[in-house]
Amino acid sequence: MPSTALVLLNRPSLAAPAHVDGAPAHRFVEPDEPLVNVLDLGVTRGDGVFETISVGYGSIQALDAHIARFAKSAGILEMPEPDADAWRDAVQAAAAAIDPVDEAYVKTIMTRGIEGDDRPTGWAYAAPALGRATARSEGIRVVLLDRGYRHDVRQTSPWLLQGAKSLSYAVNRAVIREAHRRDADDAVFVSSDGYLLEGSTSNILLRFGDRLVTPGTNLGILAGTTQGDVFDFAVTQGLEVAYELLPIAALHEADAAWLLSSVRHAAPIRAVDGTPKPIDRTFTDALNDFLLHRTK
Amino acid sequence: MPSTALVLLNRPSLAAPAHVDGAPAHRFVEPDEPLVNVLDLGVTRGDGVFETISVGYGSIQALDAHIARFAKSAGILEMPEPDADAWRDAVQAAAAAIDPVDEAYVKTIMTRGIEGDDRPTGWAYAAPALGRATARSEGIRVVLLDRGYRHDVRQTSPWLLQGAKSLSYAVNRAVIREAHRRDADDAVFVSSDGYLLEGSTSNILLRFGDRLVTPGTNLGILAGTTQGDVFDFAVTQGLEVAYELLPIAALHEADAAWLLSSVRHAAPIRAVDGTPKPIDRTFTDALNDFLLHRTK
Repeated sequence: MPSTALVLLNRPSLAAPAHVDGAPAHRFVEPDEPLVNVLDLGVTRGDGVFETISVGYGSIQALDAHIARFAKSAGILEMPEPDADAWRDAVQAAAAAIDPVDEAYVKTIMTRGIEGDDRPTGWAYAAPALGRATARSEGIRVVLLDRGYRHDVRQTSPWLLQGAKSLSYAVNRAVIREAHRRDADDAVFVSSDGYLLEGSTSNILLRFGDRLVTPGTNLGILAGTTQGDVFDFAVTQGLEVAYELLPIAALHEADAAWLLSSVRHAAPIRAVDGTPKPIDRTFTDALNDFLLHRTK
Repeated sequence: MPSTALVLLNRPSLAAPAHVDGAPAHRFVEPDEPLVNVLDLGVTRGDGVFETISVGYGSIQALDAHIARFAKSAGILEMPEPDADAWRDAVQAAAAAIDPVDEAYVKTIMTRGIEGDDRPTGWAYAAPALGRATARSEGIRVVLLDRGYRHDVRQTSPWLLQGAKSLSYAVNRAVIREAHRRDADDAVFVSSDGYLLEGSTSNILLRFGDRLVTPGTNLGILAGTTQGDVFDFAVTQGLEVAYELLPIAALHEADAAWLLSSVRHAAPIRAVDGTPKPIDRTFTDALNDFLLHRTK
């Protein structure tokens, strides 16, 4: 089997015509071959949505939550709704087509398609996930960076597309470069009026005693698929969980903090803007053991 | 000759290796064939830069200004500097390869390339420019939409990439949909603290008597290539020109206003948020006559 696989969907949304009438729902394409047309709005305008789904020991994790968020992102961008069944099948086909590894991921992308064609382009790409162990064991250093928006911008200015996992992610890459410049590993976005938002591709989780808190999605941040599973797990461990509006000070005051995401899972924060923060080793290990071995 | 042409660069930046050692600087590719790999950061993260250059009666217009801005955008994104000579040649080759038409355009795109490969991907695409005459003659209705950022965000938070013409343009598309919903044609971004910024893909120009003003590029907006030529033209017509920090009220108070961009050129604003605004027909025609017939 190959180490990577690429699946092209024939009809990413039932609200738009198929690309090839009567063709199968998806087909395998050589991953190294060009797939995207230069007039595709996905590349000319970053006009599309994506998900990155972890595969742990062969199990696709949080698939329904990812498919639901994919649809939500498409809705915010006013794109045709992804066909959940077609995408689920494509993700499973891609994941099943690669060499078995302990950790892999499948990335789904749906673009608005070629300008004027009104048919989204969609594919699923599967590959091994490498090099995440250090972040889980050693922790990560973060810097707080202003996203420039007020905390309520999703409500006041929906055209800014906050809360959508879109292909217009150049800023999410730029903040990583800024973090590296500041001798850190990752960035946590804060609102212009001083509230914690989310990581560059993750949610932030704080622990206060027996209580876990994370910022609410009314802040124009992504509903975390990993964070959702962590909350479910935490409740089984007797912890309280809550979504709150959290000022920046809450991160400094928390007993421990993590960035949660698919693939990297729970990365404990060991420094904030250069100030060391203690790592909760026991709970970090419990979280990652749970996350790595989820069977759905 | 075909109506469109696509040119792929072998070495978009001298700071990165060529794609194929010893190959020509560029080659023609079938425009309808897929060109972009699914791992190219241009499509996965909107991580790249672009320009759209007008071609009037066979003349490529403001080419040096476009190439300079392309490099400036790449710098803001911390990408390798585009090789100006290679890009100039690619634009000229693409423009020369299509059927002669009165109005055409060439779009240049440079992405960060395939993740981990450290070689930008670059191409130039030429096509006829159609359907812009109505905007010039009838004018356009605009709505003012909050960009969500303060006017000084370029200085305080450079990681937000304001002032770069990047491929992360999903918001610039979303504001057009919002404008249509409000029975308008285009949007003008304003800062969260109440200053005029720019159109969704244009600069805004105001006329007060014999004076033309436009917002300054220290506001995190694009330096307009068309606006630059318009200022040069205006000076030859005995007008004063200035870059200013303009409150929203200035648009309402101005004698006339335009959105300036390559391809569409000078589109007079005939309504702002539903309130009619008079069109300066004489100067609009003079501007577009000048812009359409530029020979460089």
